[in-house]
Amino acid sequence: MNNKYFTERQRATLQEIMRHRRDVRGNRFTAEPLSDDVVQQILQVAEISPSVGFSQPWEFVIIRDQQTKQAIASVFAAENEKAKQQFSEEKRQQYVNLKLEGILNTPVNIAVFYRPSEDGVLGQTSMQEMGEYSVVCAVQNMWLMSRALNVGMGWVSILDPQKVKKILNAPKKNKLIAYLCLGYVDEFLESPELEQLKWESRVPLDRVVHQNRYKD
Amino acid sequence: MNNKYFTERQRATLQEIMRHRRDVRGNRFTAEPLSDDVVQQILQVAEISPSVGFSQPWEFVIIRDQQTKQAIASVFAAENEKAKQQFSEEKRQQYVNLKLEGILNTPVNIAVFYRPSEDGVLGQTSMQEMGEYSVVCAVQNMWLMSRALNVGMGWVSILDPQKVKKILNAPKKNKLIAYLCLGYVDEFLESPELEQLKWESRVPLDRVVHQNRYKD
Repeated sequence: MNNKYFTERQRATLQEIMRHRRDVRGNRFTAEPLSDDVVQQILQVAEISPSVGFSQPWEFVIIRDQQTKQAIASVFAAENEKAKQQFSEEKRQQYVNLKLEGILNTPVNIAVFYRPSEDGVLGQTSMQEMGEYSVVCAVQNMWLMSRALNVGMGWVSILDPQKVKKILNAPKKNKLIAYLCLGYVDEFLESPELEQLKWESRVPLDRVVHQNRYKD
Repeated sequence: MNNKYFTERQRATLQEIMRHRRDVRGNRFTAEPLSDDVVQQILQVAEISPSVGFSQPWEFVIIRDQQTKQAIASVFAAENEKAKQQFSEEKRQQYVNLKLEGILNTPVNIAVFYRPSEDGVLGQTSMQEMGEYSVVCAVQNMWLMSRALNVGMGWVSILDPQKVKKILNAPKKNKLIAYLCLGYVDEFLESPELEQLKWESRVPLDRVVHQNRYKD
């Protein structure tokens, strides 16, 4: 092999960062500010993430303005009110007690958009979703680097994308992929909060892995 | 902070793995076999990837059977024939000379599916795509761990998902997210092949980053 060979020790580091990565909720963030330099380091790994046909179809809005966050928080509140109706009565009680986002109590929010290409994109001719999926790969890179920087990140998806686009003056053709809240935390939980709360249980790998084809 | 604190050196390792990750094309793979143990290590980081509402909506089909790969390769050939019509004459010449997949010349293919939940999923109430995006995060984790294991991975997207589902006997409600080819390689390129070939050029970060909102 001509180039970079990774060692067992480096793989262990990668695995450890992945294992300690958390979707951080609103009640864990501290008031500590986040420097532009740290935000830049997180964005830089988006730039080196994979994209279909090397199309790099991502755009980022870095939000520090409190008024903009307030407007987004209102969109969340309205969507969350609708969301809770979708759960059984037993789960609804648990649901309303969860603090699901840190929009107002994180120093930085990042809205991540997919910008469709004007031209044909190599590899996106049969599966149109590949453009969006490229942006998601970038978000996962950002999530891992945030954790490696000891910065908490939460992905807020209880939002009306059209309303978010309007608040951020986003081009009509862009699609909101992720709305991220970033800040330092008092603690990274040892396991996902929803696992700890028994909202869902962990699915063992052997239940979701098939050999060669699904059996009848 | 109560737990795991990552250092500058560990961040550098993560950044290095991300920077050396490549979408590996068919002409780079060697005939060296891939052990079940290595495949298992790659799947294990899918298990610890993020998922909306801790729904873990992923399923994997590990394909070593040559007949199955042949059937998938035929689906690729038909879609690729259609795909090349979508590019300008100049690009078409370049397109047909690219070897875009390693379906038959990799020891292992992995089809990755999204399995929608029967019940409401926390966080997926406003943005239905969050289920699919969770599976994409798992694929990105697998891609990084493959690179750390010095294993090449290529994501093949020039496929008709319905035909792939039929070949793999996948449940009707499942959605194909990614078709991956994995194997050892003669070389990981220093930069993306499509960048080297000037198919697309790299987009500088400052062109896609906006502060607080898009300017008019």
